Formats: sequence, structure tokens, C-alpha cells
Amino acid sequence: MGVVEDKLKKLGITLPRPPSPVATYVPAVRTGNLVYLAGCGPAPRADGSIPKGKLGKDLTIEQGYEAARLTGINLLARMKDGAGGDLDRVKRVVKLLSMVNSAPDFNQQPKVANGCSDLLVEVFGDKGKHARSAVGMAALPNDIPIEIEAIIEVEA
Amino acid sequence: MGVVEDKLKKLGITLPRPPSPVATYVPAVRTGNLVYLAGCGPAPRADGSIPKGKLGKDLTIEQGYEAARLTGINLLARMKDGAGGDLDRVKRVVKLLSMVNSAPDFNQQPKVANGCSDLLVEVFGDKGKHARSAVGMAALPNDIPIEIEAIIEVEA
Amino acid sequence: MGVVEDKLKKLGITLPRPPSPVATYVPAVRTGNLVYLAGCGPAPRADGSIPKGKLGKDLTIEQGYEAARLTGINLLARMKDGAGGDLDRVKRVVKLLSMVNSAPDFNQQPKVANGCSDLLVEVFGDKGKHARSAVGMAALPNDIPIEIEAIIEVEA
Repeated sequence: MGVVEDKLKKLGITLPRPPSPVATYVPAVRTGNLVYLAGCGPAPRADGSIPKGKLGKDLTIEQGYEAARLTGINLLARMKDGAGGDLDRVKRVVKLLSMVNSAPDFNQQPKVANGCSDLLVEVFGDKGKHARSAVGMAALPNDIPIEIEAIIEVEA
Repeated sequence: MGVVEDKLKKLGITLPRPPSPVATYVPAVRTGNLVYLAGCGPAPRADGSIPKGKLGKDLTIEQGYEAARLTGINLLARMKDGAGGDLDRVKRVVKLLSMVNSAPDFNQQPKVANGCSDLLVEVFGDKGKHARSAVGMAALPNDIPIEIEAIIEVEA
Repeated sequence: MGVVEDKLKKLGITLPRPPSPVATYVPAVRTGNLVYLAGCGPAPRADGSIPKGKLGKDLTIEQGYEAARLTGINLLARMKDGAGGDLDRVKRVVKLLSMVNSAPDFNQQPKVANGCSDLLVEVFGDKGKHARSAVGMAALPNDIPIEIEAIIEVEA
């Protein structure tokens, strides 16, 4: 078992099948050693439910953090796919754009986005440290609380 | 005539002159084999009008889809420019960020963004399949319904 | 003193220490010759104050322009860091994503974003000309009026 897969097992995380894109696009495109991952939302919880709602209106920061962590699990599934099936081939998480579904007066997007950022550093260590923006969106597909897109660098 | 230009002709699409940036920036920057295209909105319709308004308030999903397709036409004009005047030199559409002008409760951004994504696959085939995020913005310049930025890979 | 540092001095601009990220992420990640800079907000004014508020509600376009210029100063500090301490090693500002905190009916994001774009061209000349999107966010961290992320190309 790979180093990163082993880490996931220790964290009790099972990766879902990568979410199927709902349109004429693909989950990941590689160009050179960079892989661009399509934006995705939270993976289902153990009970099959998926977080919904807007921060500053329907959800607390803690609930947003959980949704961001679940989104990180979906991103890991896409990264595995984008890295040819082996997470150990991820050389660096380069960049996240963390888009938080926000009421107009919600101003704590970084605390929500940390749910995904913290997970990536838990799983990858220093290779998981990324540049990031965490910003407030007016609305997101299917009322998900957060959507995150990512750029990763993979082994040549 | 190039393969892609021929396809555009069959689709009855005439590319506009690339929209002039309205500020101190440029429509496209190339670095290595990647070209970063500035965000743009819909090209004018045949009658010269340009779609305006917010999804979930002023426009239906079908009207949003049309606006996204018109935005794709503007992007194609910029891609041609960014690829040295020859759309056949576009090797891959890598990534779109599709930003939909959205009322707070509008949650069907992917169906709107498909207007551009579908066009790119019609025009480029498999090379047009891209990673994508489709998200809801509070507001956009001049009340356009959608703004899309893109990354493409071009021949070396 | 470097050419760019000299230009900053003539403009009367002192770069702040690069803002510390408030979470598990880093201010800049280099991959190949590209450096991805995390989104940041305005640097403090000379009196230590930081702009706050939403365009179209709390702030005029002129106040937004000033906030964008202050954000440019923060980005320059991060670019210096990301370019190994020497701004002359910045080969090109490739791309900005200028995210303006906007009331739902504010539609002049480009005029606000110019505050940063104009500064980069003043400082870097043609190397400062970039592709850009300027769009309206529902909300931003700590109620800052604008957050900008950037991609730059640096000397090999």
C-alpha cells in the first residue's frame, strides 16, 4: 500500500469513486506535470447525506469546516485519478480556490476552507501545503456549502 | 481553411474581433505552452444586442445557456488570437472558470455553463474537453449573466 | 538596488512584510517557472488602517480603486518573496483574479480592479501586463473590499 493511502487508512478515510461530472467536461486535465482538477463539492457522509446550505444563514463555521473536509475527500479521489491511480505520485498540492457559499455578511471563509486545507496537510505533509484563496460566493450548484478547485503537480 | 475554422463555418459561427480589454490588462498571456485568457462575457447576438441580467431573477436557464454559448464565441476569438491566429494550434482546452451572475437561491450554474462547454466540444472534439468550475457570483461587470476565463495549451 | 525596487522607491511605496497566511496554507508555491500567489487583501495605509466594506453599499469606486492599489502592494511583497527576494527576477505577471466584494447591483468591478492592474504596469512596465478577470463576490474574509490572487513567471 502506498504511503499516502496508508495515511488515509489511519485517518479512517475511504475515498469515494471520483464524482462524475454532470456535464460536458472532465474531472481532471493534465498538461506537462500539472493536473487541473475541476471544482467539486462535499463527498457524502457515512450515512449518505451531503451537506447543503449557506454560511452565515444555514450553517455554523463548524458545519462549514466539516463540509470543506468532505470536499477534500472528493478532491483526494480526483487527485488519485489524475495522478494515474497512485497518490504517492502527487509531488505537490500547488493551489486551491476555495469558494464558500456565503450570506452577504459572512466574513469567515478562511475558517471554513481550513477543513480541506488541514486535511491535505494531514494526508500529504509538507507536499500538501498550498497557495489558496478562500472567498464568498453568492450561490453554488445544488446549494452545496463549498466548492473547491485545485492544481497539483505530479511526478514526470 | 483550418479544421477548426471549417467546423465553425459549418456551425454558422462568425468569430467577432477579440473584445478589447477595458483596462490596463491584456486579453491573453502565454507562458510556456499555456495561454491564460482574460475573463470575458457574451459576444453580441446577430442583432447586436448583448445578454444582461442575473440568473434566478432576470433570466431563465435557457437564456443563461445562450449567454454562455455567446461567451464561448468570444473565448474562441481570444483563443485564435492567443494561438497565433490559427485555432488548429490549440492542443487542449485545459480549464474553464465559469462565473454565473446569480441570485442567492439560484443553484443550477452547471446547466448554464454547459452553453460554453458544449460549444467547445462541438468545435474542438476531444481536445475541447476541459476541467471546469461553475459557480455563482454576486455581480458581474455591466450586468452580464456570465463571465468565463480559460487556460489553453497550444502547440510548442 | 534593483530596477523594480528603484521604481517602487520613486513611487514612494514601501513594501510590507508579506502577510502571514491565517491558516494551513502558504503565501506562494513555485512549480517550474510559475509562482502561484495566495489571494490577499489590502496592505495597511500609512496610518495603519485597512479598507473594509462592500462596493455598491459602503464604498465608492474611488475608494475601491485605492483598496485595489493597496492589495497590489501586498501582492508585490509576496511576489518579491516568491521570486527569491528579487523583484527583478519577475519575468511576467501572467494572470490576476480580482475578486471585488460587491452588492448585488454593483457592476463596475473592472474600474475597481484597475487600482492593482495600473500599479503593476507602473512598477513592471510591459512585464506587468496580465490577463485578468474582475468579478463580484457575495462576501470576503474580514469584510475586505477586494481579494486578488496572481500567477507570475520568474527567471529559471
